[in-house]
Amino acid sequence: MEQLQELLERIIQRVNINLREPLFDAAPYIEGLVPWEQMVKFYAFYGIAPQYPPNFYFSRSNLAGSYFLGKCHVSDSILYKSDIRGDELKRKGDIFHYEGFAVPLHEDETIHIKNSCLVKTLVHNNSHDPEHPEEFTIYNTVSTHYANIHGSDVEGCFLGPFSTVDLTTLHDCVIGEFVYLQKKELAHHQVPAGTIWISAAGAFDFHYRHDPEILQNYIRFEPGGMPKGIFMDFVEDRKEDFQRIFDAFNLESFGVIPDSASLSRYAVVKPKVRIKENVLISQRAYVKNSYMGKGANAQENCFIIDSHLSGYDVTAHGAKIIHAHLGENVFVGFNSFLRGADGFQLKIGENSIIMPHTIIDLAEAVTIAPSSVVWGFIRNQDDVDQNSIPLAEIAAIDGEFTRGRMHFKGSGKNFADAFRHRIEHILEANGAYFDGREKMGHAQQSQIISYNIIQPYPEGANKGLYPTIEILP
Amino acid sequence: MEQLQELLERIIQRVNINLREPLFDAAPYIEGLVPWEQMVKFYAFYGIAPQYPPNFYFSRSNLAGSYFLGKCHVSDSILYKSDIRGDELKRKGDIFHYEGFAVPLHEDETIHIKNSCLVKTLVHNNSHDPEHPEEFTIYNTVSTHYANIHGSDVEGCFLGPFSTVDLTTLHDCVIGEFVYLQKKELAHHQVPAGTIWISAAGAFDFHYRHDPEILQNYIRFEPGGMPKGIFMDFVEDRKEDFQRIFDAFNLESFGVIPDSASLSRYAVVKPKVRIKENVLISQRAYVKNSYMGKGANAQENCFIIDSHLSGYDVTAHGAKIIHAHLGENVFVGFNSFLRGADGFQLKIGENSIIMPHTIIDLAEAVTIAPSSVVWGFIRNQDDVDQNSIPLAEIAAIDGEFTRGRMHFKGSGKNFADAFRHRIEHILEANGAYFDGREKMGHAQQSQIISYNIIQPYPEGANKGLYPTIEILP
Repeated sequence: MEQLQELLERIIQRVNINLREPLFDAAPYIEGLVPWEQMVKFYAFYGIAPQYPPNFYFSRSNLAGSYFLGKCHVSDSILYKSDIRGDELKRKGDIFHYEGFAVPLHEDETIHIKNSCLVKTLVHNNSHDPEHPEEFTIYNTVSTHYANIHGSDVEGCFLGPFSTVDLTTLHDCVIGEFVYLQKKELAHHQVPAGTIWISAAGAFDFHYRHDPEILQNYIRFEPGGMPKGIFMDFVEDRKEDFQRIFDAFNLESFGVIPDSASLSRYAVVKPKVRIKENVLISQRAYVKNSYMGKGANAQENCFIIDSHLSGYDVTAHGAKIIHAHLGENVFVGFNSFLRGADGFQLKIGENSIIMPHTIIDLAEAVTIAPSSVVWGFIRNQDDVDQNSIPLAEIAAIDGEFTRGRMHFKGSGKNFADAFRHRIEHILEANGAYFDGREKMGHAQQSQIISYNIIQPYPEGANKGLYPTIEILP
Repeated sequence: MEQLQELLERIIQRVNINLREPLFDAAPYIEGLVPWEQMVKFYAFYGIAPQYPPNFYFSRSNLAGSYFLGKCHVSDSILYKSDIRGDELKRKGDIFHYEGFAVPLHEDETIHIKNSCLVKTLVHNNSHDPEHPEEFTIYNTVSTHYANIHGSDVEGCFLGPFSTVDLTTLHDCVIGEFVYLQKKELAHHQVPAGTIWISAAGAFDFHYRHDPEILQNYIRFEPGGMPKGIFMDFVEDRKEDFQRIFDAFNLESFGVIPDSASLSRYAVVKPKVRIKENVLISQRAYVKNSYMGKGANAQENCFIIDSHLSGYDVTAHGAKIIHAHLGENVFVGFNSFLRGADGFQLKIGENSIIMPHTIIDLAEAVTIAPSSVVWGFIRNQDDVDQNSIPLAEIAAIDGEFTRGRMHFKGSGKNFADAFRHRIEHILEANGAYFDGREKMGHAQQSQIISYNIIQPYPEGANKGLYPTIEILP
């Protein structure tokens, strides 16, 4: 295992060189994070499907538990149960439109991960960096538990647990726990824990920061230890349910689901789940005793428990919905944590937007009006007023606006339009609108896929390292 | 699936071009052999172990169910549940001794399979062709159910079901059902079903042919159909027991076995099996209610049922031992079928050699004296006399000797020495003599291995074809 340990030291050094400004030492955060025995025991896998011509290259890396699809190159890296796909990569000949530029791709886009350590990180590949559209790059970066690298090139970064970088190109940044960042580009910045910051230069800027005292109950990460708090406990408590789906090669199928719906064989579906047309349940999603209405989805690392999703509801990567009733067309952003209870349900009216990284953890029944925008931290009905606004009202803002810990400036219309546009893109891409012939998306295309399973050397100096693997069509 | 079907046609054409002399049409034998649906459903796998640096290259092929280890290149081929390893390949710098030549290897030996179709064929790689020791080649060849290609380069051949070519380089030959051939080199020959022919030019020649009338009860293969008979029924009846080991990713382990023994996770071990030190049970072996004494082995595709192997017993590839008691140091050759029954056991005395492709299918209890050489077809004690000879007696022959359907000429001493030498090599290579520190072999070295699992395209024109895969250390 010497080689694997040396690799981790090398990665830490590379990250620290990048982070010398801001001055940050990644080492004490990482050294305990890598579960060496599991790095040897867990397998990684890649999908073979005609729609996503494979192009995989893995070298000098450990990939334990990760999932690859499409075109992915990984070298000198340690990935642990990281969900990495390649099903939204751009193709040769595509035109990538970005702020007035029309950039034609001269070759297929490929995910490149190098000198990086990703622990249970989701990588989603709908990248938005116009500077090198053929390469989606993650270099010299450490990303910790349940962080989302979402269409974001990152280089020389440290991403705290449950953070999300979304459509943001990052250079040499430290991103705190539970930060949500959508800012096109950011360099040499340290973003404090619990910040939700959405900024479109010249158009709008949405800013909220969770109360650090409250947030630390949910997630905290101190040097030398593991991430701790309610979020970690919640996920760890359900870890065993995932064991079975990784242990069996051919699973008994989960009863009948509509032809147009798709349920990953790497998702956990517990009893009493109903799945309607065009539903997408992604790998490592967890659904229990819930109704998934037409076109609803549960993306990677989502948990949907004792809940009702009426239809066309989006559950973005890592979101958790427990004891909730969602009207149609509700968007629940990344890593949001929505928890009602048996006696008091959370009701969310149709067309509402739950901003990424919102915590709604109820002490009483709460109802959110239709067409609301919701953020922050909510325990009861009173909190809703300080942490939401009607969509029509925010769309009317032009200038500055503050409510509770949230500060907004710029064009509310642009903000609302951008959200609505993006939600439509997600529903479309996921196949929510498939009519039996047209408007296919992931729900229809992900149905037929072969999984190839790869493991590392079980003994010797290379223990824990995978052999060099190249897969081409 | 168009590409896969075209591939099969191409292979048939290549084989037929090679077999124009002797004039032979492989097509009607093959067309029904390939179970298309299983070619898509079954996975293949390769082992990653520090002792066998991987070098795999697979292209334009289907590999359903096959097992690769070491260095194997497969292109334009269809392999179906073929056991192919690479754990006895020669290495760069090795000196290969052959009839007075000392041939140094200038690179590592690799198995090359091209334009071939192997159906449930075992390939064992201890090759003996001195002409290109760096390449163990299987080209333009069709090999059918449970044939063994054992250390034998083959080109342009058709191998019938349950045949074995052993240490024989074959060019453009048709090998009938249940033929055992060990003849160094053979070209443009058609060998009739049931022939057992062991020939060391200038030293000795052992020849036996099973009665075709009797043999067809055990195995027959007619154009347009599948192989039929007792051998096929026996194997098919136990097929379901193998399902479970391929379905589970991590199997519950089979109780305690000695540290020095090795049990493949792809073997079937049914209740009441005892495994002693230095035992080797290979993948796709099947052991039930039996005792495996120290250093005994069950090689690929063996079945050992209701039997007692005292120790240092070799069960060569594909042999079946049912209701038998073997003394120490008994060798049971390839594809032999030894079947006693509940009321009448088969007893084989120590140091005996059961020649490859022997059928002992009892109608009464039978005892074989220690240090016998046994061949042919035996139903009762009387048959033993016509189908065996004391080892000392055959070693004394110098010239011609006939017994029943067996004909021998040459030096009996050379024949006996060659067998004894080979059995020692097998026991040594398998680790039967491991003393806790030295004399390691497969039983000790095969214990720690990772299996990587590969599958073909599940849909589209390439359905059933695997992507191009390259694996290097």
